[in-house]
Amino acid sequence: MVIELLREKNAEFFIQHSGNANFFYATKFRSSSTMFYLIGVDGTELLILPEMELGRAVRESKVKEIASFEKLGYEEKMKELGNPRKALAEILVDRLKEGRANKVLIPADFPAFLAFELQRNFEVEVVENPFLKLRAVKRADEIAKIKQNCSILLRVFEKFVNRLNLRKNLTCEFARNFIERELFFFGLIAEDTICSTGKLSADPHELGKGRVEDHLLVDVFPKNPSTGYYADFTRTILIRKNSEIEVMLKAVIEAQKKAISMLREGVNGRDVHNAVKDCLKSYGYETKGGEGFIHSTGHGIGLEVHEEPRIGDIDVELKSGMVVTIEPGLYYKKVGGVRVEDVVLIRKNDCEILTPYESFLGVM
Amino acid sequence: MVIELLREKNAEFFIQHSGNANFFYATKFRSSSTMFYLIGVDGTELLILPEMELGRAVRESKVKEIASFEKLGYEEKMKELGNPRKALAEILVDRLKEGRANKVLIPADFPAFLAFELQRNFEVEVVENPFLKLRAVKRADEIAKIKQNCSILLRVFEKFVNRLNLRKNLTCEFARNFIERELFFFGLIAEDTICSTGKLSADPHELGKGRVEDHLLVDVFPKNPSTGYYADFTRTILIRKNSEIEVMLKAVIEAQKKAISMLREGVNGRDVHNAVKDCLKSYGYETKGGEGFIHSTGHGIGLEVHEEPRIGDIDVELKSGMVVTIEPGLYYKKVGGVRVEDVVLIRKNDCEILTPYESFLGVM
Repeated sequence: MVIELLREKNAEFFIQHSGNANFFYATKFRSSSTMFYLIGVDGTELLILPEMELGRAVRESKVKEIASFEKLGYEEKMKELGNPRKALAEILVDRLKEGRANKVLIPADFPAFLAFELQRNFEVEVVENPFLKLRAVKRADEIAKIKQNCSILLRVFEKFVNRLNLRKNLTCEFARNFIERELFFFGLIAEDTICSTGKLSADPHELGKGRVEDHLLVDVFPKNPSTGYYADFTRTILIRKNSEIEVMLKAVIEAQKKAISMLREGVNGRDVHNAVKDCLKSYGYETKGGEGFIHSTGHGIGLEVHEEPRIGDIDVELKSGMVVTIEPGLYYKKVGGVRVEDVVLIRKNDCEILTPYESFLGVM
Repeated sequence: MVIELLREKNAEFFIQHSGNANFFYATKFRSSSTMFYLIGVDGTELLILPEMELGRAVRESKVKEIASFEKLGYEEKMKELGNPRKALAEILVDRLKEGRANKVLIPADFPAFLAFELQRNFEVEVVENPFLKLRAVKRADEIAKIKQNCSILLRVFEKFVNRLNLRKNLTCEFARNFIERELFFFGLIAEDTICSTGKLSADPHELGKGRVEDHLLVDVFPKNPSTGYYADFTRTILIRKNSEIEVMLKAVIEAQKKAISMLREGVNGRDVHNAVKDCLKSYGYETKGGEGFIHSTGHGIGLEVHEEPRIGDIDVELKSGMVVTIEPGLYYKKVGGVRVEDVVLIRKNDCEILTPYESFLGVM
């Protein structure tokens, strides 16, 4: 896919920088060090990294050709330039020149400093990162890793819901701590778990604090540090009778059902998003002035919580093997917010819900 | 500091993008969304973010003026351009033009796509991020947060060392799990904790696996998710008699002592690094071919595990209030690796060790 892109753009190299999921996906190697992964139009691949990472990279990375900055003259460059960033940039430029580069491709989030240095020597074009597209469609082993996370997550959530009945004076902090601690026992790390309540929950990313009022919105997206993959799940629990919240929640559940029923290979994500909007509107819920259904319908999930494809106001063709969230919500400042979210695997003719769990939860 | 830089560079705006510690440090606001923080030479500040983050940002951010992409015409731009990245870039360009920008400053890691879009409209200069410099010298509240992490870390490490005596057939995996689990109980999250042994430990970032041989290198760098700050600590434990490892370890401890004795305001980090190199050399330990003392002496620690200042082959003036690690090590492929690391607060006339713990540990 990268080589096709290079041919199409008439470029000699694509350069992937380190410190992100694309680099890990492409190289199977992770380090806090600055590293570069070069793919040539002739199929050559080169990983450049500090010498202290060499031994580990030879063992762990799937890239066969690996060179160290030191081997490529880092010490001399440092003596000449006195600046690590400039030294690394010159090494990269030298290496590309050796590879007879005229034009190089870089991803949108490539560091500007390096992009400008490259621009002094080559034609540089920013492209949609081909690894983002590759990552969007999961391999069987990736699906298994996400499924494993989802099943742990549901087990923990079930335990949490069971405890709710026993607990008086429930606070958002208790809920968050309980869920994150239980997930940790099963090897998952969750941070910034949303356990929000009351009017503040009208801000979709409010973490939540204090005593739980009529409803509790739980949005948890743990990572499995041993695999690198995420899960993502949201339920809104009615703790006490509140008809406004209850009716909003039922509309959101209906909209989610509608969206999920549409999912299969070939569908346009924009149509799914529009169906959610229409459904919520049919229930009388308007979106304006920062209230209503104020975010998109969902997103891919994998090595990042949010990745390709986005399911919202944008054209995107769903493909078999994509793993996405479907998470409609409604938010009104005078009432609060509700959201329901599941992880779903797109298949040829339908989809599989990876987080099968009751949508309407009333603990009263 | 940012305004001085803008004046010096004769520029109208500095732009900080989201998704990194600099953005959080500058705005006190965190979100997975794309956001921009603009500082004008006239002292104006503006935070631009999605409307769904607005309410939370008003409550949490220290930036007073906040505008949403939606308010600035996101929907219209999307209709026109059909691409979220281009729409955001145009909004940013429009806003800068309104502020009569001719020249804008961006940090080195600014996304290339946006940098190129800005370049079409303004003079663009990449600068050393002023927030990196500000972050290097800690405020009292930041020092307190790091100290708190260090004291939890030492308590957990002490418990681990005490357990070592009772444990037969210790594995790297057991050590890692034990330490990470205990840290979690105290609210710290540690990932990729290095517990390495044998010859593989000659790779400084090898995580370690299998049964512990003669020595165990533990390097743990937990984050406190409620404050965002890190700690960082390394000890090499002699599990069984091994004179080669023991002599290496004693040399490293000596080199660390020497380095720490030099630390105070005004000292050049390069001199500290050279003192470490000289000390290890005086013990007969050569550095070449990826063996010996193959990394730098230390680094700042705070909202990132590795931040300014770097203490290595580079000139950097130490200042009172900097919090840095001092972590010499020796690595030989036929023997293995040893490293000792402490967190240290630079003061006017000396330094304070924030991880006071025995350096030589022999559990035999």
